[in-house]
Amino acid sequence: MGAMPSSVIADLRSDTVTTPTPEMREAMARAEVGDDVYGEDPTVNELQAEVARLTGFEAGLFMPSGSMTNQVAIALHTRRGEEVICAEGSHIYEWELGMMAAFSGVVPRFVTAPLGVPDPEDVRLAVRHSVHQSPTGLISLENTHNKAGGTIIPLEVIEQIRAVADAEGLPLHLDGARVFNAAAALDVPLSEITRHFHTVSVCLSKGLGAPVGSVLVGTAGQMKQAHRYRKMLGGGMRQAGVLAAAALVALRDGPARLQADHRRARVLAEALAGAGYRVNLAAVQTNIIYVTLPDAAAHVARWAEHGVLASALGPDSVRFVLHHQVGDDALAGAMDVLLQDRAVAGALK
Amino acid sequence: MGAMPSSVIADLRSDTVTTPTPEMREAMARAEVGDDVYGEDPTVNELQAEVARLTGFEAGLFMPSGSMTNQVAIALHTRRGEEVICAEGSHIYEWELGMMAAFSGVVPRFVTAPLGVPDPEDVRLAVRHSVHQSPTGLISLENTHNKAGGTIIPLEVIEQIRAVADAEGLPLHLDGARVFNAAAALDVPLSEITRHFHTVSVCLSKGLGAPVGSVLVGTAGQMKQAHRYRKMLGGGMRQAGVLAAAALVALRDGPARLQADHRRARVLAEALAGAGYRVNLAAVQTNIIYVTLPDAAAHVARWAEHGVLASALGPDSVRFVLHHQVGDDALAGAMDVLLQDRAVAGALK
Amino acid sequence: MGAMPSSVIADLRSDTVTTPTPEMREAMARAEVGDDVYGEDPTVNELQAEVARLTGFEAGLFMPSGSMTNQVAIALHTRRGEEVICAEGSHIYEWELGMMAAFSGVVPRFVTAPLGVPDPEDVRLAVRHSVHQSPTGLISLENTHNKAGGTIIPLEVIEQIRAVADAEGLPLHLDGARVFNAAAALDVPLSEITRHFHTVSVCLSKGLGAPVGSVLVGTAGQMKQAHRYRKMLGGGMRQAGVLAAAALVALRDGPARLQADHRRARVLAEALAGAGYRVNLAAVQTNIIYVTLPDAAAHVARWAEHGVLASALGPDSVRFVLHHQVGDDALAGAMDVLLQDRAVAGALK
Amino acid sequence: MGAMPSSVIADLRSDTVTTPTPEMREAMARAEVGDDVYGEDPTVNELQAEVARLTGFEAGLFMPSGSMTNQVAIALHTRRGEEVICAEGSHIYEWELGMMAAFSGVVPRFVTAPLGVPDPEDVRLAVRHSVHQSPTGLISLENTHNKAGGTIIPLEVIEQIRAVADAEGLPLHLDGARVFNAAAALDVPLSEITRHFHTVSVCLSKGLGAPVGSVLVGTAGQMKQAHRYRKMLGGGMRQAGVLAAAALVALRDGPARLQADHRRARVLAEALAGAGYRVNLAAVQTNIIYVTLPDAAAHVARWAEHGVLASALGPDSVRFVLHHQVGDDALAGAMDVLLQDRAVAGALK
Repeated sequence: MGAMPSSVIADLRSDTVTTPTPEMREAMARAEVGDDVYGEDPTVNELQAEVARLTGFEAGLFMPSGSMTNQVAIALHTRRGEEVICAEGSHIYEWELGMMAAFSGVVPRFVTAPLGVPDPEDVRLAVRHSVHQSPTGLISLENTHNKAGGTIIPLEVIEQIRAVADAEGLPLHLDGARVFNAAAALDVPLSEITRHFHTVSVCLSKGLGAPVGSVLVGTAGQMKQAHRYRKMLGGGMRQAGVLAAAALVALRDGPARLQADHRRARVLAEALAGAGYRVNLAAVQTNIIYVTLPDAAAHVARWAEHGVLASALGPDSVRFVLHHQVGDDALAGAMDVLLQDRAVAGALK
Repeated sequence: MGAMPSSVIADLRSDTVTTPTPEMREAMARAEVGDDVYGEDPTVNELQAEVARLTGFEAGLFMPSGSMTNQVAIALHTRRGEEVICAEGSHIYEWELGMMAAFSGVVPRFVTAPLGVPDPEDVRLAVRHSVHQSPTGLISLENTHNKAGGTIIPLEVIEQIRAVADAEGLPLHLDGARVFNAAAALDVPLSEITRHFHTVSVCLSKGLGAPVGSVLVGTAGQMKQAHRYRKMLGGGMRQAGVLAAAALVALRDGPARLQADHRRARVLAEALAGAGYRVNLAAVQTNIIYVTLPDAAAHVARWAEHGVLASALGPDSVRFVLHHQVGDDALAGAMDVLLQDRAVAGALK
Repeated sequence: MGAMPSSVIADLRSDTVTTPTPEMREAMARAEVGDDVYGEDPTVNELQAEVARLTGFEAGLFMPSGSMTNQVAIALHTRRGEEVICAEGSHIYEWELGMMAAFSGVVPRFVTAPLGVPDPEDVRLAVRHSVHQSPTGLISLENTHNKAGGTIIPLEVIEQIRAVADAEGLPLHLDGARVFNAAAALDVPLSEITRHFHTVSVCLSKGLGAPVGSVLVGTAGQMKQAHRYRKMLGGGMRQAGVLAAAALVALRDGPARLQADHRRARVLAEALAGAGYRVNLAAVQTNIIYVTLPDAAAHVARWAEHGVLASALGPDSVRFVLHHQVGDDALAGAMDVLLQDRAVAGALK
Repeated sequence: MGAMPSSVIADLRSDTVTTPTPEMREAMARAEVGDDVYGEDPTVNELQAEVARLTGFEAGLFMPSGSMTNQVAIALHTRRGEEVICAEGSHIYEWELGMMAAFSGVVPRFVTAPLGVPDPEDVRLAVRHSVHQSPTGLISLENTHNKAGGTIIPLEVIEQIRAVADAEGLPLHLDGARVFNAAAALDVPLSEITRHFHTVSVCLSKGLGAPVGSVLVGTAGQMKQAHRYRKMLGGGMRQAGVLAAAALVALRDGPARLQADHRRARVLAEALAGAGYRVNLAAVQTNIIYVTLPDAAAHVARWAEHGVLASALGPDSVRFVLHHQVGDDALAGAMDVLLQDRAVAGALK
């Protein structure tokens, strides 16, 4: 919140803070558009088809945020009073403000998830079919898992959880806000991950760098229902092609840049650990670094005065996120500030 | 909704179908942006302040659609199980897909509204405070009233309904999707209308011509809560300044164009009436014309083949909407098609 | 609602005010009971089976009120954001406090219903299947229709509306709070009416005279789901057999008494009309009489001082309801009070 | 749940399975009743006043179940999208079927609770006031805590949590389904526990032995709103005095019997532990015993054939609950069956 510092060396608060590239701005300026509420925006239609193709699904639907694509997916799969099995710390619970309850009338059922990875057997034990308890309506995974540190769910774990879902007759959703990071880190095509799910929410405005937008993918029938839920939520936008045009550029140019983000995150994490910061290096698998630091907010505020922006996400938790607008020079500048901070040194003693 | 015809003379389906002007595209390409979820997008902030200023409110909040601004307002003002008093045919009920129930848990309580104008005494009689019935939580008006024909609520009626709201201790919301049309037709400043309400939803992507976006205005405290509801609904957008830049252009250039839209609507309506179409001319007060015509969908489909697009909004109801991308020439072309249609002549006998 | 007057001649406020008969009290005192949340209460099971048999359904589920049976039925048949087609003035909307919205997330879609009877063609026109509008989830009828005056829906109209439901692939529910009155007035077995519906809510604590309870009937599969919804609503009661025992007595003895209630209602209605009261005699088809009278509450309060209780259900609307605890003598006493009331004579001039 | 065995030695599944005593049946048979939806049932009014007096509150409201009193309390205190802080394993989440989400639109925020007792500092850390996350709407405790083993929250912990609630401006609710057991075990008046809360749900059909019913207590203003929520949920019962009469007997006779239940639970728990069963004796503080036993359902089924009923509440968890209809002889009989069960001996090796 509040004003930005006058001179920012590196904005490491999130990969959502990127501003559109010149290519994106040009694409927006010349985008062919129509009324997307009528399904007539050719650029939106192109984007939806492209994300569906990359993920291996039949159809896609563009929405203004990843929260909306996730919540529409929850609405698609559940009925009131059911449970959504998810890893502790999942974005659909921690950062989507009770919407699973307020809109879909469902509650979370948590499974523990060290490094963001649930044990498939725990997922199986969490399933309920009784009329005396809330029945399970959906299993939802998050990959990479933001709160666990941008961690990756191994492909074989996904396969095993899909087998549980199939055995129990349950749908499996992926919150793929950062699934492109997972694919980049595993060096596999996106569809190698996404094909195990019934629906996937893909975000274009995080690591890929688009200004606005996410796409939900599933069957054509599901997307027809999703269209209704999107309208209920107020996500029906008119000439949305101006956003889709930027997102298409992000989709084209963004994935290739992610491995550099991951490399820089590794460099920063190891430097911080070397300087005495408490970092769980095993969790630094993609572009996110969590540091445990008492009085997090005070440190974050002080760094901000020196041009380095990070997020205090709890009384003693700081998050740094790399993205394509923090290059090697900016990273070096940020490291200068962070590694020479005597106040931190004191706190770490 | 299918493909557009190859050659369109006039798209009269809605004032939502306009495409961005060159000025809007240029503004989008050079917009200064930030992460609006953090409140840091300067262009969004400027737009919000400008709409608040024009409407005479303390603060505003940008959202992707008018459905979202309306539904956030309903959530702000009500608690589960309450009633929302509104005119029959209101957009918040007819076109917002049960969201008042699904999200806010409230039901509509209709008052009759000839030409879209409820009788203040009927509003008073519809208020309930009992614990044995659903208590009233909100009174909501729509001005201009879409389904009634783009009709205007007289200022004195608004004042009287506000007096009812005050006497009953109830909030009063305005669905101002087309409130700029009302102000233009009445030739009064926007705030002459909006100042009687506790919250107002203003749409920028209808007659004003912006590609995407609406703004909710109210007190600063309400907008803080609205921020949370917007996030719940998935309306938190990142670098939304690209949209806000276009909306600022729409806000600057759009209002002055509305009287021409109204004039053209009048010309078309009188010509249709003169040719035997059933038009309630008393309802043609702004940019919308409703025609009663059996087998509406068939006629609309046939006109579309001749390049004139209209909306069939019921088995025997056709809607034409004027907007700034239908000029005098396009209107003349559309009238040629509509007035020389022998099939209609047959149906009207 | 305040204290009862010291000496009541006739309580005509509702057929819900009856107190248990000696036979009911004896049955309650010796009822065999168990834990009904476990499905082990033999008296509840017997009641459920008996109501299912009488209505011609596979299974039944006992609940504490008719509001609960109706709302569970709405939850069974609908998904969030859908519409429930019902007659204007329906109990599920007017007296169930927005619960269709708060719990099921659905809105009403009203059809006009002179004397409580909707036109099947209006029902058909009210059906929607679009993703651009709220789709219809359920058609619900009320028979007899309380607010219309205890009026009966003719069997052929029910058949025609069922045909609409079938053609549109929609479920049809009956709010049968007073369906026993309809059957008695038509002199047909209950199942002649109920067999046209997918679910029926039957109330035992209105004309039949049980102290507490309603039963929902449907398929065994539906009742399994209904069991879950009943538990969600807090309607799972433990040794509910004490209530079911009284309800079984009501079911055995109550129906035969209804025709006398109807006869007395007719006598009272005609006497009131003869004395100048404004009564729509065509609407007096069962045990309910509505009188139009300015300052209803004042008249009702004055009659109460003379031992005659009625309900003021609006500024100028009074309702009288006959039931088995108002016999011929009590009725004569009430008529003495009502027909000799000079204040009413003044108001009626 | 199927049929009961032909000859039951001891039904230890729950304290909800008791059947009404002769005194209760007699009270039901002669209860003075009225229409409680109008607030006119004198026996219900007496019960409500008596529970309010015992708990030290201004007013009470009778409802058919403890799930309903809890869910009405949640609705009273929260707005959609908020969080309810509660101990892991709380009844309001585990056994109330997602109703906090479906009706109130809120989600749980769990704090760990060894032996059912949350750390006040953990409660404080769980509070949120941000618009970026779900704000806290309510703190809810359960005393005794069913799933933790009928465990008691120490009075000083309650006081500390109330201090947190006050400091944060939050309401504090007690799920007091078994709060009489806590008072009996601590040997303090009920109000010593209940006075620290803003609302309390008290159950009469568990250890106290009434057939049906719970009472919510709070301020008179809250109970007026609770009346509306009760009606929404379908909990408005007509001549509910027949149930209240039994509940008044339970309230008079029940509390004095609880210490015997606790003594028997201790005897059984120690005997089971002595025989090699895995029992956490520290958790056996009132009338509930949890045993960890692989293949719980199979053992429970086998014991049932021998007349001893217990609950399998998970794959390896068995619950025994003592109540006033399991006396010393029945307990001795049950212990014979349980302690001589060779199959268990095998499983415990």
